[in-house]
This record gives sequence, C-alpha cells and structure tokens, in this order.
Amino acid sequence: MERIAVYPGSFDPITMGHIDVIERSLGFVDRVVVAVTNHSRKNSLFTIEERVALIRTIYDKSKRVEVDRFNGLLVNYMKKKRINIILRGLRAVSDFEYEFQMLLANRKLDSRIETVFLMPGEEFFFISSSIVKEIASLKGDVSMFVPEVVAEALKKKFKY
Amino acid sequence: MERIAVYPGSFDPITMGHIDVIERSLGFVDRVVVAVTNHSRKNSLFTIEERVALIRTIYDKSKRVEVDRFNGLLVNYMKKKRINIILRGLRAVSDFEYEFQMLLANRKLDSRIETVFLMPGEEFFFISSSIVKEIASLKGDVSMFVPEVVAEALKKKFKY
Amino acid sequence: MERIAVYPGSFDPITMGHIDVIERSLGFVDRVVVAVTNHSRKNSLFTIEERVALIRTIYDKSKRVEVDRFNGLLVNYMKKKRINIILRGLRAVSDFEYEFQMLLANRKLDSRIETVFLMPGEEFFFISSSIVKEIASLKGDVSMFVPEVVAEALKKKFKY
Amino acid sequence: MERIAVYPGSFDPITMGHIDVIERSLGFVDRVVVAVTNHSRKNSLFTIEERVALIRTIYDKSKRVEVDRFNGLLVNYMKKKRINIILRGLRAVSDFEYEFQMLLANRKLDSRIETVFLMPGEEFFFISSSIVKEIASLKGDVSMFVPEVVAEALKKKFKY
Amino acid sequence: MERIAVYPGSFDPITMGHIDVIERSLGFVDRVVVAVTNHSRKNSLFTIEERVALIRTIYDKSKRVEVDRFNGLLVNYMKKKRINIILRGLRAVSDFEYEFQMLLANRKLDSRIETVFLMPGEEFFFISSSIVKEIASLKGDVSMFVPEVVAEALKKKFKY
Amino acid sequence: MERIAVYPGSFDPITMGHIDVIERSLGFVDRVVVAVTNHSRKNSLFTIEERVALIRTIYDKSKRVEVDRFNGLLVNYMKKKRINIILRGLRAVSDFEYEFQMLLANRKLDSRIETVFLMPGEEFFFISSSIVKEIASLKGDVSMFVPEVVAEALKKKFKY
Repeated sequence: MERIAVYPGSFDPITMGHIDVIERSLGFVDRVVVAVTNHSRKNSLFTIEERVALIRTIYDKSKRVEVDRFNGLLVNYMKKKRINIILRGLRAVSDFEYEFQMLLANRKLDSRIETVFLMPGEEFFFISSSIVKEIASLKGDVSMFVPEVVAEALKKKFKY
Repeated sequence: MERIAVYPGSFDPITMGHIDVIERSLGFVDRVVVAVTNHSRKNSLFTIEERVALIRTIYDKSKRVEVDRFNGLLVNYMKKKRINIILRGLRAVSDFEYEFQMLLANRKLDSRIETVFLMPGEEFFFISSSIVKEIASLKGDVSMFVPEVVAEALKKKFKY
Repeated sequence: MERIAVYPGSFDPITMGHIDVIERSLGFVDRVVVAVTNHSRKNSLFTIEERVALIRTIYDKSKRVEVDRFNGLLVNYMKKKRINIILRGLRAVSDFEYEFQMLLANRKLDSRIETVFLMPGEEFFFISSSIVKEIASLKGDVSMFVPEVVAEALKKKFKY
Repeated sequence: MERIAVYPGSFDPITMGHIDVIERSLGFVDRVVVAVTNHSRKNSLFTIEERVALIRTIYDKSKRVEVDRFNGLLVNYMKKKRINIILRGLRAVSDFEYEFQMLLANRKLDSRIETVFLMPGEEFFFISSSIVKEIASLKGDVSMFVPEVVAEALKKKFKY
Repeated sequence: MERIAVYPGSFDPITMGHIDVIERSLGFVDRVVVAVTNHSRKNSLFTIEERVALIRTIYDKSKRVEVDRFNGLLVNYMKKKRINIILRGLRAVSDFEYEFQMLLANRKLDSRIETVFLMPGEEFFFISSSIVKEIASLKGDVSMFVPEVVAEALKKKFKY
Repeated sequence: MERIAVYPGSFDPITMGHIDVIERSLGFVDRVVVAVTNHSRKNSLFTIEERVALIRTIYDKSKRVEVDRFNGLLVNYMKKKRINIILRGLRAVSDFEYEFQMLLANRKLDSRIETVFLMPGEEFFFISSSIVKEIASLKGDVSMFVPEVVAEALKKKFKY
C-alpha cells in the first residue's frame, strides 16, 4: 500500500528549508502532498495562486511530490484525500511548542491522524519565510535561502 | 480573613484550560475574581460585554467565583479592590517568559502584589483562546476545548 | 518494499510513553525494531538482559515489533541491519536539544540515515524512566506509568 | 481554617532564593512547612541533620515557618500531615520542565494535591544550591547568596 | 586601531536595558554606534526622528556613543561605515532564537561580520520597549524602566 | 591598550566548536587566553596536562592565542592576570541558562568583569566535548568534530 504524507503550510514563499524537509521525507514515505493553505493569521505576500505556482515549478517533473491547496480544516482535507500522516519540520524551541499545540488539537479532531517531525539540515535551520521576506523587502540577496524561481519572484515583488 | 485572588486576562473566549485553573485555585484561595481586561494588543473576537457575559453564564451560581471587568493598569484595579494575589496559569515555555516579564513589571509597580502560578491538567495544556478561534473560524468542532455556551457563541460568530 | 524503523534507547525500564510511541509509529512504518543499548552514561537499574526480556514479554505476539540489543555505534548497527530510519519520541524542550545533537552527529556519521520524531499522547508527556525509578525507589505506585510486568519487576527490585 | 503549604526540597544548603520564596508564600498561606528530603539522586554536602539545623536556626522565632524532614514519597508525607498544597519556586526554563514532570506525577499519585509556583525576586533568579557549593568549594565569597549561618557552615566544610 | 560596534534596533523607545547594554559594551569596544532602523515589522509609537532625538539627548556629551539611523540592510550600512561588530543584548530564550536566526542570516550576507552578545543586569532583564509602551498606554509609572527624558515623552504621547 | 579575553573551560577535549569560537573572537580582541580549569564537577577523560598539551599543539605558532591552566575561582585568576573579559560560546537554550547563572555569579563576585558571548558557525552548533567522547568510546569516527591531534589522542585513549 502506498504511503502518503501531507506537508501543510502557507509557503509564503517556499524556502530551501521546506525543500530539504520534503527531500528527507521521501526516505520514508512514497509520496508527499505539499498542501498550501489559504487561511493564515497573517497577510500573505504572494497570493495562494502564486505560492502554488512557485512550488509547482520546482516539482514540475517529480512523480513523488504533488502540490495542492486547501481551505478549511486540515483534518477535513486529509479525510477527503484519505491521508493520515502530517509532515512537519522542526527547527527551534518556539516551533516546537506551536507544533505541539497544533498536533494535539489535530489529534483531538481526528485520532487516526499522526504527525511526524523531521529536522532540516543545520544549514537550513534558521531560514524562515519571514526572514526571507524581511531581507528581500530590504533588497538583500536571498539566493542562498530560496530556489532561483522564488528569488526572482521576490525581486519582482520588491522591484529590485 | 478572606483570601481573594484576581485572575486577569482577555478571555476571548474563556476555555476549558482557564476553567481548570479557576477550579484548582479554589483549593487554596476563598474567592477568585475573573477580571476581563478591555485593553489588549490584539483585536478581540468577542466584545468585552460578550466575554464577561459568557463567563457569568458559566459561574452563574458560584459563590466563590466573581466576574468583573477593568480598564487601565491591573495594579490599580487591585489596589481599588484590595486584592494582593494574581492568579496565572502556566502551560508552556513561551508563556513562562511573558509571565515573568509581567510579574516583574507588576512587582515594580506595586511591591505588595504576589503572583501565583498553577498548571492546568495536561489535557488542557495546549488549549489556548487563539487556537480555539482558529479552529472555529474554519468551522471545526471546538466542543472539547470550551464550555457549551462558548461553543455556541463561536458557532454564531462564524455562522456554522 | 518493507519499511523498518529502529527505536533505540536504554529502556531502563520501558514505560507507557515508549509504548505509545511504538504504537503510533506503526501507522507509518511496517515494522519497528526496539533496540536496547548496552552503553549508557548512567548505571542502569535493570541489566540489559532484564530490559530486553521485559520488552519481549510485552511484544510477545506482535509480528510488527521486534526486540534486539546492540553494542557500539547505532549507525553501525543500522548499517548491518540495513535500516535507515531512526524513531524517537519528543516530549519536552530539553529532549529536543539533546535529540538535535544526536541527530546531527548521526547524520555526519552516515548521511543516509533519517530520524523521525513522534510526540506521545499528552497523558504520557511527562513520564520518563527516571521518574518511574524515583517513585518506585520510594515504594510508590507506578502502575499508571508502566505495563504490569514492569511494575512487578520494579517491586521486586525495590522489595515492596 | 488554617491554610498550610509544604515547601519540599533537599536544601543542600538553603539559599537566599529559597528564603525569598518562603517570605513571598506567607502572603497567601498561613503557615509553611519546609520539608527536607533525605532522598536525593545526588550525594549531599550537608547531612540531613545539618540541613534541618541550618534552616531551624534561620526560622528560630518564626511562628509561621516550621521545619521538618521526610522519607519516602512526598504525597504520603502530605497525607499524614493533612496538607494539600505544595509550594515551589520557578526560576528558569529548565526548572519549569522538571517541575511540570513532578507535578503531573504527584497529581497522578494523589489528585487532591495542588502545586503553586512562585517566582523569586530577580536578584535571586540565578542562585542555586549547586552554584553556591561550587563557589564555596573554590573558597569564594558566598555571603551574597546565603544567610550568614550557612556561609559559615560552608566555610567550615571547605576549610577556609 | 579603533574598535567600533554597531548596536542596531528600533529603540521605540530606548529603555534602561538598552542603556545598560551600551555601558557594558564600552568595556571592550572603543565606540558604539546606536543605529536606529526605520524598517520595522510593527508600527512604531515614536517616529524615527523622535527616537533618534531621544537617544541623542541621553548621549549628548558622550564621546564614545554615536547615534545614527539607517535604511535597508544592516550589513550594507555596516559596509559603508566600515564596522564589523554587531552588538546585541540577550535577555530570554525567545530573544535567543530570534537572534540566532538574524546572526546566521547576517553571516551569510557578509561573512566578515561578527555578532557579540551581552546580558544586561538582572534588574533590566525583563524590561522591553513593548512592555514599557503597554504600561505607559495605561498611564502607569514607567520611570524605573526608562530615562527621564523618555518617561516624559511617553507621558506626552499618552497625555497623562 | 591591548584587549585580552579569557576563554575558560574544561576542554576535555577541545573541539572544532571551541576553535571556531576562538577564531571569531580574534575579530574583536587582540589576544585570547584559553584557560583550562582543573576543577570540574565531572571526571575528566584527559588529565589537565594532556588537555593543555593538546591545545598548545594546535596554537603552537599563534601569537594571539595563549594557553594556560587555573585552579580556584575564575574571577581570582582574572584579577591576577588583569583580564576583564570572559569569552563564552552559546549554542543552545540549555547552555544559555547555565551561562546566565555563571555570568550573574561572576558579576556579583567582581563587578568589573564582563562576559561576551559568540555563536559558533551552525556546522559546529551541536558539537560538544561529551558527544565527541561518547562517539569515540564507541570507536566511531570523530575526525569531523575535533582537530586531527585530538582525534588521535581519543583513538589512543579508547584503543582503536
């Protein structure tokens, strides 16, 4: 039986840290669905269409990475797609607590769901979408932090 | 002499975690004043009148739990009410640091004030008002996280 | 292809928290090898033979949980057994940092190895082998924290 | 009804931080029993008789602070003394996690028991019995960290 | 050769904690440039002109503390000013992680840059610009937390 | 005036992480004294003579790095050597709290002393002397974690 995990997030935009987590997950699941959420507490820089399109460009030819979007509760999306595994990257203590809270809420909402955590390579440890946006908004070079297609999209957004 | 503690917060809305802290505190104080603040850095989902009314419904018949609201500094409210004990729940490392900061500021503002911390039951560890609002905004079931009257109020707000 | 994870540890003794992690892992791997290490910085209460025997009693009839012991480096044991996935439970911030350190060392020693982390149920969050041993050494009731066979072994060790 | 809390610990030796917690607790309980445990994972510098004697000297004339010792489980000691409140000081994140673990174990062992946490003054935040012993073993001046009688006892132990 | 450090921040407004860090840094660098950034994720209470002016008033006669403002990336500002040392205060675990992230990003952007961290005196540990603004917005007394000139500016802003 | 920092520790043995901190510190001090302490709560693997000799071999030709040993309190050693700056590396949250405690104790013992913290490169983040010894005791390859001369000394100690 095929083993599939969902990797949910706002991916605003996707970074080398996210990509590292996806690569690593392919060592123990057959397929990963990168599921971009439309619902976020913060305003996003990229529209959901743009965020999905950027990830699709990167995983264009991959047979094992699918890109999708979802509205509403993650557990409902997973039920519909018949996926039971959530994939999450863990970088820092602050992540850790937020992740715990979400995991326990998800378990309460659907007890069959399991969350597995991976740690990105240490060179991606401190890369986050927010820091990338902060540097790009100041017209700094973000090419070490994001794939080329994302770096260009950031340059267009911030006109440099 | 009667021992009274104030339990301050925005309670937007009150959760099972808050209620657990209130119940536990009644093991060592005579009365608890749940003091809803009108001042918050974030926009609230419920108006202060709604928040107070929800808590009043829950503690309708309790002789030991009083519900009140306050403006301005907590230490001034406490001086006026002649209360010296602040009650706070501690759940996670991030809480811990914020609480320390507030406690030290309050001690500087009025040295007679003491803050006592309780830890909620582990089943309420990761319930917060924000996560409850996030789930409700996605029309998820929050009945394990909040009292029934609050669950209904959330359904009305988010129309589901 | 069968997916196998190794769950390494000293298991001195195995607790309900470990068992919860094993159960959860069976949702995304085919088999788990519980690998008891003979090498520990602390003196163990139970000999390695006793620790292995206790876990074997628990997983007596399980076809998906194997019990084994190893000496030397985990990465060498895994190479010999042709396993690439390490399973670890995460409970608290302090775990988190130690786990990071071990994971990065293991990745340096063998880059094909991936560590996946699970979080136990919140009712097992704060159970550790050390706290169980501390309570048992004081002749306290540990039956909520460990399987029956372990509770009895602890009673024998501490003569109560 | 008189409200009594037990303040358990190894107090090897008592520091200004412990004393600050005791003083603060007297703002919301009637009496505190400082309960010195004979059971500790580490070797103690002072014998339990010495540790109890040092605390007794300090609270010689206090009617609200009692000094006692106990063997075995804290919950059993509390049952015998009919005390339901445990008092603990919280200083740092590492304390926080250990305290959580002990609190949850104690709640499982006796659900009527409640633990209340206080934070010492910031000038005592980073004083611990271990750091005091480390400085004293190097013949350093510990008079800012412990009461005079303890400073003298440390000098005798380390012959300076 | 003169050793110069830049102390970057939004300083909205400068607090006793910042001032303590500046004083301490003068023990190992010759001069400090307090560099106020115009770019912040949050809306500021004081305009950049006001923030710079407040700090200038405080360091009016100091030959070793210079006040400046900058736009854009800190690393570019430092290149232009030929400064290689960033000075940062560390107070709490949450600071710690954010600081790590910024430091690693800065190192990637310019490898010659080094960040040195100081810890403020424990009496300034829990003072932050946000908590000062929160208290002032409630017309509380902030004179223990900020220099007099800042306390007065806060009173004007909040009209009390 | 020459600026000198002391870098104290047990260095049992020195790792690439320590060396990275020393290199970075030379960007803002003129000289570093690596001061090996004979006093440690744990038993050391290498004698103090061996530890000093290993570091001396590494900094053989360096004019800016001196190696020394000390007994007793660090503050006394610094007073004798007329050094006011302590250099420390910060890697993780657990370090952070221990370092705070030591820093505050040192400040109380001698207020002229300042501690500056550096963060090692992320590739050295999770390397510690203990993990190096653990891997070496299992006859694992530690050549990525320590200088060659230390790797050889470890091989001799553990006979592989």
